[in-house]
Amino acid sequence: MLLYTNRHVKFPVCLAYVGNKCFLILMCVLQIDEEVAKLLALKAQIGGDNVKHQFVLKTAKGTRDYNPKQMAIRERVFSTIIGCFKRHGAETIDTPVFELKETLTGKYGEDSKLIYDLKDQGGELLSLRYDLTVPFARYLAMNKITNIKRYHIAKVYRRDNPAMTRGRYREFYQCDFDIAGQYDAMIPDAECLKIVHDILSELDLGDFRIKMPWEDVRKEMVTEKGLSEEAADQIGEYVSLQGGMELAERLLQDQKMCRSKQACAGLSDIKLLFSYLQLFQVTDKVVFDLSLARGLDYYTGIIYEGVLTQAGVAPGSTEAQNGTPAEESVSVGSVAGGGRYDGLVGMFDPKGRKVPCVGVSIGIERIFSILEQKASAEKVRTTEVQVMVASAQKNLLEERLRLLTELWNAGIKAEVMYKKNPKLLSQLQHCEESGIPLVAILGEQELKDGVVKLRVVASREEVDVSRAALVDEIRRRTSQA
Amino acid sequence: MLLYTNRHVKFPVCLAYVGNKCFLILMCVLQIDEEVAKLLALKAQIGGDNVKHQFVLKTAKGTRDYNPKQMAIRERVFSTIIGCFKRHGAETIDTPVFELKETLTGKYGEDSKLIYDLKDQGGELLSLRYDLTVPFARYLAMNKITNIKRYHIAKVYRRDNPAMTRGRYREFYQCDFDIAGQYDAMIPDAECLKIVHDILSELDLGDFRIKMPWEDVRKEMVTEKGLSEEAADQIGEYVSLQGGMELAERLLQDQKMCRSKQACAGLSDIKLLFSYLQLFQVTDKVVFDLSLARGLDYYTGIIYEGVLTQAGVAPGSTEAQNGTPAEESVSVGSVAGGGRYDGLVGMFDPKGRKVPCVGVSIGIERIFSILEQKASAEKVRTTEVQVMVASAQKNLLEERLRLLTELWNAGIKAEVMYKKNPKLLSQLQHCEESGIPLVAILGEQELKDGVVKLRVVASREEVDVSRAALVDEIRRRTSQA
Repeated sequence: MLLYTNRHVKFPVCLAYVGNKCFLILMCVLQIDEEVAKLLALKAQIGGDNVKHQFVLKTAKGTRDYNPKQMAIRERVFSTIIGCFKRHGAETIDTPVFELKETLTGKYGEDSKLIYDLKDQGGELLSLRYDLTVPFARYLAMNKITNIKRYHIAKVYRRDNPAMTRGRYREFYQCDFDIAGQYDAMIPDAECLKIVHDILSELDLGDFRIKMPWEDVRKEMVTEKGLSEEAADQIGEYVSLQGGMELAERLLQDQKMCRSKQACAGLSDIKLLFSYLQLFQVTDKVVFDLSLARGLDYYTGIIYEGVLTQAGVAPGSTEAQNGTPAEESVSVGSVAGGGRYDGLVGMFDPKGRKVPCVGVSIGIERIFSILEQKASAEKVRTTEVQVMVASAQKNLLEERLRLLTELWNAGIKAEVMYKKNPKLLSQLQHCEESGIPLVAILGEQELKDGVVKLRVVASREEVDVSRAALVDEIRRRTSQA
Repeated sequence: MLLYTNRHVKFPVCLAYVGNKCFLILMCVLQIDEEVAKLLALKAQIGGDNVKHQFVLKTAKGTRDYNPKQMAIRERVFSTIIGCFKRHGAETIDTPVFELKETLTGKYGEDSKLIYDLKDQGGELLSLRYDLTVPFARYLAMNKITNIKRYHIAKVYRRDNPAMTRGRYREFYQCDFDIAGQYDAMIPDAECLKIVHDILSELDLGDFRIKMPWEDVRKEMVTEKGLSEEAADQIGEYVSLQGGMELAERLLQDQKMCRSKQACAGLSDIKLLFSYLQLFQVTDKVVFDLSLARGLDYYTGIIYEGVLTQAGVAPGSTEAQNGTPAEESVSVGSVAGGGRYDGLVGMFDPKGRKVPCVGVSIGIERIFSILEQKASAEKVRTTEVQVMVASAQKNLLEERLRLLTELWNAGIKAEVMYKKNPKLLSQLQHCEESGIPLVAILGEQELKDGVVKLRVVASREEVDVSRAALVDEIRRRTSQA
């Protein structure tokens, strides 16, 4: 037994001889207990082929299935978000769920320990993506793209401590919108804030604020733009009182502030941003927050966060009511975040060429938790079936299938019960349960007369419709659906 | 050093003492060389923090990004497929991208070696899903669901040998439609075949056939239904000649065939299936194939495969032209597959309760390869922008942003160039390149007159439209889009 030491940890190195081969086994002391447990488990597994083992019927920790009702809600949310991204002229791309491990290395600081790695089964070392921003930057560098406005909606993976009732999962969707390119100052940044504003408004989640952490702006003014700490704090006080546009303007007129040209430039940028936000009609929701100081490794400019402020709706609000200060109940309501990251693409480019980027990510799981809670009592349709083809008598399966085919081929969403002789009552009940608005009923008489009895499920009204007119009649009656 | 032996492999067991702890290290002989290499690589990595390493800018082997044009094509394909699934009344669900490793164990036979495992980072042992069928069965058993018609569109993962030009990837989409439940024979089975038929027709991929492997039907008739091998082969000959409905009927009338009641029942089932397929108007495309004998472990009843038959379009057709027999050029054109799997859900149920299932999976990547190739010359729009807000003179950024906000707030898809003073020509060029049909041009005169100059990019026609009427005018002119 040898002990090999590097700066950080001690390694027991074990030389094992088997036959004429010598094996070097090197293990981290901190992990050995864990490793032993795993090897013993492995041994039990290998030796236990014949033992019927207890099967655990569950999804992986921190993940969940979406049932049809949840999917219906999720699709409504996606549709709103994608609608907004498209209104702003975005294209979309997709990237693989895993990246080379080294692509993710050095991008997330402390959080890197939360990255899921794939097992080494020979070949490349891979990790599941941790966000959509780093794959986006890799995509830009790899394809030498210098201008793009794109959205990307996909799942990302974090080995975080899950808190599923608050919408924090290990597998979760991100909805990202980013603008890459060298443009005039603050125009794309303002558009990202407009997008957060519009999405949070349209989703109807209650009141919200888009917060920009003052700490970052202050730091930039002091360390990069040369403003005195005193002056910066004075600005901070103004900001906390009033926020927004007039403030920046008043500060610019302030003699003391403008002693430094660079501090002036910094304030000019903020003023510019707020002037665009004013044109975009979103200034009522955008504020600086003195308490906020958040940032991923790759952010370089303004960063912001969209926060729901209605405690009654925000997930985690129960905690706030149980004694945690009110400020925290606000911060757990964070449902969007983003900022500028001008250096990230350059980290991937062999020559370090930079592509300035700004973007926003919508945290769909928290939004989804809120909407799911709202919809819990509500009846949500999980299919779009317009009509059920039913029969009133026995031995009409073939006639039902023939009519069904006519409807399908005309583009009508339709179904039958997969029984030779279902009862009319059970066919009607199925419509009630799944919200199908119409029933096309066939009987001997209807077949003889060349008609179909069309029943409106809600009103129980029934009318005979000629077979030739049926498709149009169904379309007319379900055109809102 | 001890040697522990079980039936299959020898294990070197190494006892290592570190301080007062005793560690048991157990390794499979066959894997030790590999393990040593990995540990040495790990050591190099730990010790090599200061070494600037060469960065490889690529996606993982067998995977790819989708650029905006590819995404636009992919979304059209999805829209067609989802449209068909919804027409047949399906709900949708989603499951996590990884499952407990043991959930996948014993479901794929020989192919299990192609499953991606996640690294053991503490906690559960996880694997990436290999298909959508096993997670679906797990979902049904876990939620005790006995009846559902659902579709699921998601990526699955196989450590297969990639052949990317032929649309074979390690990460690829599956589009699955399944019907679970105890229903009258062959009705759901026929609907699945109808769905394959309709999707392949609507996607306009050229001619196709839906093939059912004769081998399986023959085996069932011989081993389970007690038909003589001779009689089965005679049926096979009929089948290869004619296929379909009349055949089954003629066979049923054949004295020799009906000596066994069970063989008769088997043939009755086939006859029943074809009678439903006839009602669904798809018999022209469905054939038995004597050469086909494919099956995953979990299939229990009929299985089928959708195959493109136009060699000029099917991926892999070049190989066929280079000397491989023509039959192979057909089989690489497989773009859909499915069948009945009545036992799979029972494998997850603690009491083994069965839920009969039948389903179909559309192989989107091959379809996508074909359509991408078709669209290579074609101009495909990647955004839906209806109008660009442009200016003819300098210093009109604010006016552009104001108009842009009006349009966005009215739900119009619109964009500007992110420049203070872009040239009119470059604004018009951007429209030409990205297919934006309209330009709303602002100038001093237009602002004074309260109008906007609306330019049709294709015809270069320009009309003055009053500001109040602009939104309606844009909607009217882009209503097809």
